[in-house]
Amino acid sequence: MIVEMKTGAPQQDIDNVVEKVKTLGMDVQLNVGTDKTVIAILGGNTGKVSTDTFAVMSGVETVTRIMKPYKLASREVKARDTVVTVKDKSVEIGKKRIIVMAGPCAVESEDQLRQAASAVKEAGASVLRGGAFKPRTSPFSFQGLEGKGLTLLDKIKKEFDMPIITEIVNPQDVDMIAEVADILQIGTRNMQNFALLTAVGKTKKPAVLKRAFSCTVTEWLTAADYLLAAGDRNVILCERGIRTFEDSTRFSLDISSIPVVKKFSHLPIIVDPSHAAGHYSLVPAIAKAAVAAGADGLIIEVHPNPEEALVDGLQSLTPANFEKLMKELRPIAEAVGRYI
Amino acid sequence: MIVEMKTGAPQQDIDNVVEKVKTLGMDVQLNVGTDKTVIAILGGNTGKVSTDTFAVMSGVETVTRIMKPYKLASREVKARDTVVTVKDKSVEIGKKRIIVMAGPCAVESEDQLRQAASAVKEAGASVLRGGAFKPRTSPFSFQGLEGKGLTLLDKIKKEFDMPIITEIVNPQDVDMIAEVADILQIGTRNMQNFALLTAVGKTKKPAVLKRAFSCTVTEWLTAADYLLAAGDRNVILCERGIRTFEDSTRFSLDISSIPVVKKFSHLPIIVDPSHAAGHYSLVPAIAKAAVAAGADGLIIEVHPNPEEALVDGLQSLTPANFEKLMKELRPIAEAVGRYI
Amino acid sequence: MIVEMKTGAPQQDIDNVVEKVKTLGMDVQLNVGTDKTVIAILGGNTGKVSTDTFAVMSGVETVTRIMKPYKLASREVKARDTVVTVKDKSVEIGKKRIIVMAGPCAVESEDQLRQAASAVKEAGASVLRGGAFKPRTSPFSFQGLEGKGLTLLDKIKKEFDMPIITEIVNPQDVDMIAEVADILQIGTRNMQNFALLTAVGKTKKPAVLKRAFSCTVTEWLTAADYLLAAGDRNVILCERGIRTFEDSTRFSLDISSIPVVKKFSHLPIIVDPSHAAGHYSLVPAIAKAAVAAGADGLIIEVHPNPEEALVDGLQSLTPANFEKLMKELRPIAEAVGRYI
Amino acid sequence: MIVEMKTGAPQQDIDNVVEKVKTLGMDVQLNVGTDKTVIAILGGNTGKVSTDTFAVMSGVETVTRIMKPYKLASREVKARDTVVTVKDKSVEIGKKRIIVMAGPCAVESEDQLRQAASAVKEAGASVLRGGAFKPRTSPFSFQGLEGKGLTLLDKIKKEFDMPIITEIVNPQDVDMIAEVADILQIGTRNMQNFALLTAVGKTKKPAVLKRAFSCTVTEWLTAADYLLAAGDRNVILCERGIRTFEDSTRFSLDISSIPVVKKFSHLPIIVDPSHAAGHYSLVPAIAKAAVAAGADGLIIEVHPNPEEALVDGLQSLTPANFEKLMKELRPIAEAVGRYI
Repeated sequence: MIVEMKTGAPQQDIDNVVEKVKTLGMDVQLNVGTDKTVIAILGGNTGKVSTDTFAVMSGVETVTRIMKPYKLASREVKARDTVVTVKDKSVEIGKKRIIVMAGPCAVESEDQLRQAASAVKEAGASVLRGGAFKPRTSPFSFQGLEGKGLTLLDKIKKEFDMPIITEIVNPQDVDMIAEVADILQIGTRNMQNFALLTAVGKTKKPAVLKRAFSCTVTEWLTAADYLLAAGDRNVILCERGIRTFEDSTRFSLDISSIPVVKKFSHLPIIVDPSHAAGHYSLVPAIAKAAVAAGADGLIIEVHPNPEEALVDGLQSLTPANFEKLMKELRPIAEAVGRYI
Repeated sequence: MIVEMKTGAPQQDIDNVVEKVKTLGMDVQLNVGTDKTVIAILGGNTGKVSTDTFAVMSGVETVTRIMKPYKLASREVKARDTVVTVKDKSVEIGKKRIIVMAGPCAVESEDQLRQAASAVKEAGASVLRGGAFKPRTSPFSFQGLEGKGLTLLDKIKKEFDMPIITEIVNPQDVDMIAEVADILQIGTRNMQNFALLTAVGKTKKPAVLKRAFSCTVTEWLTAADYLLAAGDRNVILCERGIRTFEDSTRFSLDISSIPVVKKFSHLPIIVDPSHAAGHYSLVPAIAKAAVAAGADGLIIEVHPNPEEALVDGLQSLTPANFEKLMKELRPIAEAVGRYI
Repeated sequence: MIVEMKTGAPQQDIDNVVEKVKTLGMDVQLNVGTDKTVIAILGGNTGKVSTDTFAVMSGVETVTRIMKPYKLASREVKARDTVVTVKDKSVEIGKKRIIVMAGPCAVESEDQLRQAASAVKEAGASVLRGGAFKPRTSPFSFQGLEGKGLTLLDKIKKEFDMPIITEIVNPQDVDMIAEVADILQIGTRNMQNFALLTAVGKTKKPAVLKRAFSCTVTEWLTAADYLLAAGDRNVILCERGIRTFEDSTRFSLDISSIPVVKKFSHLPIIVDPSHAAGHYSLVPAIAKAAVAAGADGLIIEVHPNPEEALVDGLQSLTPANFEKLMKELRPIAEAVGRYI
Repeated sequence: MIVEMKTGAPQQDIDNVVEKVKTLGMDVQLNVGTDKTVIAILGGNTGKVSTDTFAVMSGVETVTRIMKPYKLASREVKARDTVVTVKDKSVEIGKKRIIVMAGPCAVESEDQLRQAASAVKEAGASVLRGGAFKPRTSPFSFQGLEGKGLTLLDKIKKEFDMPIITEIVNPQDVDMIAEVADILQIGTRNMQNFALLTAVGKTKKPAVLKRAFSCTVTEWLTAADYLLAAGDRNVILCERGIRTFEDSTRFSLDISSIPVVKKFSHLPIIVDPSHAAGHYSLVPAIAKAAVAAGADGLIIEVHPNPEEALVDGLQSLTPANFEKLMKELRPIAEAVGRYI
């Protein structure tokens, strides 16, 4: 941590900062510049001390943290890439194979889910997605089939022998959902719902942590620390677009977050092109970009009949368009040394 | 809802849209322009139909919703200003008196809370703030005193006869916290935690709904609909800054949200200058601006000794600075026809 | 400047950084931490060296600049507030009197400008605004009366004995416009048009530098350095809203920029509530907030007949609404120890 | 254009809007809903009328424009893809071959430029980039070699028989630079410098229009209209990242802008991964993503010795890294049916 004193700060102010550093059990080194004094605070546990501790002191201009705030998600703690194994090793995320998860935004009926499962499995997806509990922005919108949806997921999953991923929105539902789901999904609006993160983390199940559309990569990795600290080593990050001023898409997919995550973290990262785009016609280009940039997987909305979808129909691919996309993705995967 | 067809869309596409509107029980009016056909969908319940229903249809260029997505929070549903009454009418939010809530970010000890309560009451604050359960971005940061903090709040509240406001982060804690708190606070990261909103709404207690730092005013009012739909009429909105590219403050306080909320909603709005600023030296100017712009109240962080604060010390006012600010706010309140 | 080496960076990398610092004529101090080595670079002219110089070197993790990039606009270079004097001291910006500039967005006709001038002078404005050269986002929109508009400004200015402010968009027009205008306005889209800044700076005339809607306060003050470096000491900053995701207003007025500018710069700051709001009904609340937060002036769009305005009619006040606002602003100005 | 009246707006207000539409020579169709009246304004030239014309009228709630504000850049005006031909057809942008432009950010010396040209040509780049006139955020930073840089570009261009692209920052320099440059570059900070756009447009030379880091795709295409309206048909768009809250990269590359531009415009689009990333280690992933998403070209910073670069060294690739990237890009280009 670097404490920059104000120009002309009196010696007493500098001494007070040094004194405080020492009482906190850390080392200090003083840089007396021509203009200002700069104090470097050293020691392995400076990460536990808030920058405010020094920023509020008299004579201090700024305090800059050099250590990143996340720990367990960082490459410094674990250098080797994490591979998340789902359901008896049939699906591994973070290896050469790019994993595609696909299905409807919301489970609407047995027929709908069966048709979707059949289509996406046929086209090469490894995991079925489908929401039973939906976080909707208005209380007057369809909220998902809830318990009944979960039952349908369980049924179709067995019928097609596909692992499923489904969203969890309330800490109280963790046990019920963990019994059926192979991967628990934490949605963008819950990335900093710490009660939920802790509850999910305790299951130690594979968990997809969607990036909050308003949070930095640093905050995202720090939220992943909640899952990891609760004992869950099976964390998969999911980039799904951030909120910006651009209005031609629903969110702006932050393609650069893929190499940034790969640089600073050992966790696998997948991409959701559907929620970022908001329109099915833009999904293929974003999906291709994600694979080329190094994503370990994709999660794509596919609906047997988007015109009848209760939620997010506009961003859902038809089975035919999904099959076409899968064919187009394969040579790109190969071009970056991977396969689908 | 307005459906704009693509230039040159075939008649069949237009007919299909019209047909679908009719099967949904709504009326339609066709505008055949020189360039394109525009279809207006009419009827009182178009708000329940997703724009995607039409946007996915063949030949459709765009679908624009004209009705706002929120209902219960809107002036169209309730034209007169809502006044929220706390604890036997001793505090009313939304009337001529501007209500100031103040206290430490986190409850740290009995002494700290007592000193803070004494100082803010003396200076003219009507409500004591203090967090027992803290949503922290890292699992390795201080998480609040939790149950013990709640006990302290209860004790000090009785000692000073001040209503208290405290944050709730887990739906499971609602009953426990509602027993002690006079106002329940939903934090910025939980504005779209719909499970929590519903749980809080059922208590029918006064609730402060902080704006998510990444959400529009429209989304904020739609989230308020969750509280209102659960039966809680005592909703207070709180602007606390939004996330932008500007880095000289922690968040950018959206001062315009005050007149925007007043225009479209009947709910009272208060402002949190402390979290927006991130630095105590900027708090007074923002607080004054909020009062001048028409805010119904303020919630301000005050710590008896900011240098020792475990959370957010840098943005906390000392008791002396708070007292000074209160004095400066009074003539501004009077200049806009109110008082503190 | 602080150079943080990667964990485990070899000694040779550290030595190379130290060597480079010395060849650049600056001092260095080494902090060998338990985890990483941190190198502080000291000396009065580190501001002239790019952080990239070190960031590209082998073994370097990050480089953090501690000195701010702006110089002439900073309080460190000039501690006392700058007062900008317009036209024989009749108008001074940066003193106790809050200066109001008002008038139409664009000069449209002699009648329109005369009516506007008459109304705003009557209500208490000190400076008449009006654009002759308009930067419009589409080439097919009205581009202003240009030369003819300038002639009208000159005529009305003499008729009402009011200083005028008008925008300049092309370096080639500087001499022509400077002959008529008392204050030169640099618009938000030109804040980083450095050729224009230098041309305007050379006139040494009072200049209003509007903040780019996409730039930080730091970049804004650095752009002011272009005017100051060209010899112009009469720089007035103008906050007019930044671009965010919020869509209920045209831009989000950054109210906090007022105390931030006052803290770090000696230059006066005025606020344009009209362009931020985008709707006349929101202008009064924002204007009041600006005065309460410490702005030195306001620039407000007033049109004798907003329904007929060729540009920005929706955000223009009528003369009656402007007069009402001026009356409401006076007690707020007094509440913060100033007058209008 | 759609005018939504307020709930309960009196008939007189509705009549006034209808009357105004007719005096403007456009047609109107009335939709009298159960809640509100909605007025559709029809006709081929509604694009020339400002929404404010109606928004300011009594009883009007909102006005929504359905036509896009850009014309000449739209697919509606020109359905077929534009191909921009540079220098006797040796380079064509917008066909199957993906064009790579590469070179240093700034021309620093004859040696530097020669080494860069040699390296990028060898690796397969078709166009040499290099800035002689640099728009720098601080007046105290290196501003480019200016005229001398232009002379060096001319010399090296002939030596290597490569077309060059260089930035233009002042309308007065157009003739001088157009004599040497094969492609004129308009930088991100000048995208809405309309005087510059018009001056460049008049040359009818190939021009790269970089997206302003704060502007929407719609505003970008509307700015392209300035070049097209001035008679220049050779416009190339360049996505280079937008400003967001994310701080791990310098800007956030908006990968979705590629399919969005392809959908709505006939103009070719290239991508600048270097300015978006801000760090050389992130450039390859972004460049690959751009090719996979359908970009027609790339513009990449390459410096023979990034450690010595006067500008933007951190984001520059070494010749060796550039050569490696070019090899990796080729199979991706092939995977999407193109070549480099």
